[in-house]
Amino acid sequence: VNEFEIIQSYFHKSTYDDTNNVVIGVGDDAAIVSLNSDEHLVVCMDTLVSGVHFPEATRPEYVAYKALAVNLSDIAAMGAIPRWITLSITYPEQNEFWFKAFAKGFYSLANIHSLSLIGGDLSRGPLSVTVQVQGVLNKYRQPLSRAGAQVGDDIYISGELGAAAYALKSILEKEQWEAASDGELARLNRPEARVKLGQALSGIANSCIDISDGLNADLTHILNASGVGAELNLSLLPMSTSLKKIDINSAYELAMTGGDDYELCFTLPSDINNEQLAELNAICSISHIGKIISDKGLVLKDENNHKVILSKMSYRHF
Amino acid sequence: VNEFEIIQSYFHKSTYDDTNNVVIGVGDDAAIVSLNSDEHLVVCMDTLVSGVHFPEATRPEYVAYKALAVNLSDIAAMGAIPRWITLSITYPEQNEFWFKAFAKGFYSLANIHSLSLIGGDLSRGPLSVTVQVQGVLNKYRQPLSRAGAQVGDDIYISGELGAAAYALKSILEKEQWEAASDGELARLNRPEARVKLGQALSGIANSCIDISDGLNADLTHILNASGVGAELNLSLLPMSTSLKKIDINSAYELAMTGGDDYELCFTLPSDINNEQLAELNAICSISHIGKIISDKGLVLKDENNHKVILSKMSYRHF
Repeated sequence: VNEFEIIQSYFHKSTYDDTNNVVIGVGDDAAIVSLNSDEHLVVCMDTLVSGVHFPEATRPEYVAYKALAVNLSDIAAMGAIPRWITLSITYPEQNEFWFKAFAKGFYSLANIHSLSLIGGDLSRGPLSVTVQVQGVLNKYRQPLSRAGAQVGDDIYISGELGAAAYALKSILEKEQWEAASDGELARLNRPEARVKLGQALSGIANSCIDISDGLNADLTHILNASGVGAELNLSLLPMSTSLKKIDINSAYELAMTGGDDYELCFTLPSDINNEQLAELNAICSISHIGKIISDKGLVLKDENNHKVILSKMSYRHF
Repeated sequence: VNEFEIIQSYFHKSTYDDTNNVVIGVGDDAAIVSLNSDEHLVVCMDTLVSGVHFPEATRPEYVAYKALAVNLSDIAAMGAIPRWITLSITYPEQNEFWFKAFAKGFYSLANIHSLSLIGGDLSRGPLSVTVQVQGVLNKYRQPLSRAGAQVGDDIYISGELGAAAYALKSILEKEQWEAASDGELARLNRPEARVKLGQALSGIANSCIDISDGLNADLTHILNASGVGAELNLSLLPMSTSLKKIDINSAYELAMTGGDDYELCFTLPSDINNEQLAELNAICSISHIGKIISDKGLVLKDENNHKVILSKMSYRHF
């Protein structure tokens, strides 16, 4: 089996090739797609490394699902529409079972969003997966970015925090953590990118980011890019029920720094009307957790309005 | 030093951001660029793994240069114009020296082609580099692909074959091969993608591919995609002077199967006029090496018109 046979067996066909403006897809030197004249191109790239971003024993379906989901989450955070995928897999050996399972997990998510796989690469080497998602955005719309937060904005977060981090702890530190439920494991292995919410936020939110490294680190990116500060009330955080199994301080720490949630954190002007909020809540639950202030930095407060300092601050890449 | 500091230090600024339709570049969840309404998007992605695609001791400048060059070569083979780069680096440790040298090699090539780095990722893990290049192509022009070769077409190749493969042998099998010259090492470490030639071939050539896995394997992709066969005369191959150091059969084998040449192999209709050929030759030297025939398969002949069988057929990915 060589690269071409593997690609032909598992990755060549895509249900959406014909309807997704794909001029040339998988199998040539490069892929060619067609954008509409009112669209910008939006691209993001993320690599997942075995033993670093996921435990080595993770099932190939989950590796595939997650590698795609984390990129969809980035596309969501720009308010864009995902369209085309490029995929590079590095794997130590020829393993038909692994590639078959990987392709199954990959297409299970790609098909939900009507995405076409248009190209990529396959190499021998230590397991890692790089996905790039190409999306489009109406060019007459203000893009959602990290840089637009305004003093006085309300800070919101979608869904709940902490389930994925809890599930990861329960795998890596078995002795100290109660086993994660199937639901918690699903948040780790099959995170849901908030693609529809992101599109709805485009034109409404002043800033947006997705939570990959933890709320603390990712909100700080918004603050730095926007030149503002923020005050969060920890008691307003939408905590996953998983976190009720552990003491409150550890729970706050996981919620703020655990990462892997792939929720959206965004800021809305304080004069947003209730109808708009209801429309966003109809897509997925959103929670108001704090506000943007002019003093730089991120201030955390508890339910008694006392300042809180967390010991572990975020996932570090090195 | 965390991911963001490394990116900010070495990869944030790009000379061409302002002139390359970059709406949002490095530093947000995704990048946004603008295409003109008469352009298609062309994308390709390639991963280089340490110890697989390059020797582990390769200098970071060369790793960077080559990771970009092999993608530019794919863009060239489509006849497209490269514009924007996304880059994912996986590296075992924090190493300022390495990243600095990598960035130097990277921009030394990116700047030649006026490319903007618009996004990517940085992870801890075994060294590998994934580059995606985004290019554009006039949508009213027939794209160069592997699939258009016609019976009767003449087969051409740009430049010379074998120097990169010779240089690699001289590194990996020091006892058996005379040391490579600086020029040969440059062909391995700093391959020249035939971007201008590819653009000139668009609308003229019936098919095109770049030579990464070796002429034998890559021409076979054209033959399979086009449903035709080919006859090559080995004595017509534009052999690198490096290959004159070794016996003729080993030389043919390296030229046909060595890989890493990043020349273009293309087919032209036999009624191409001399003026068009002269224009192509003015960009870089091209050599007529054989013809497309209706019988499937690739037939190799020597200077006496005798069939030749090579023992080693091509680089295999697994």
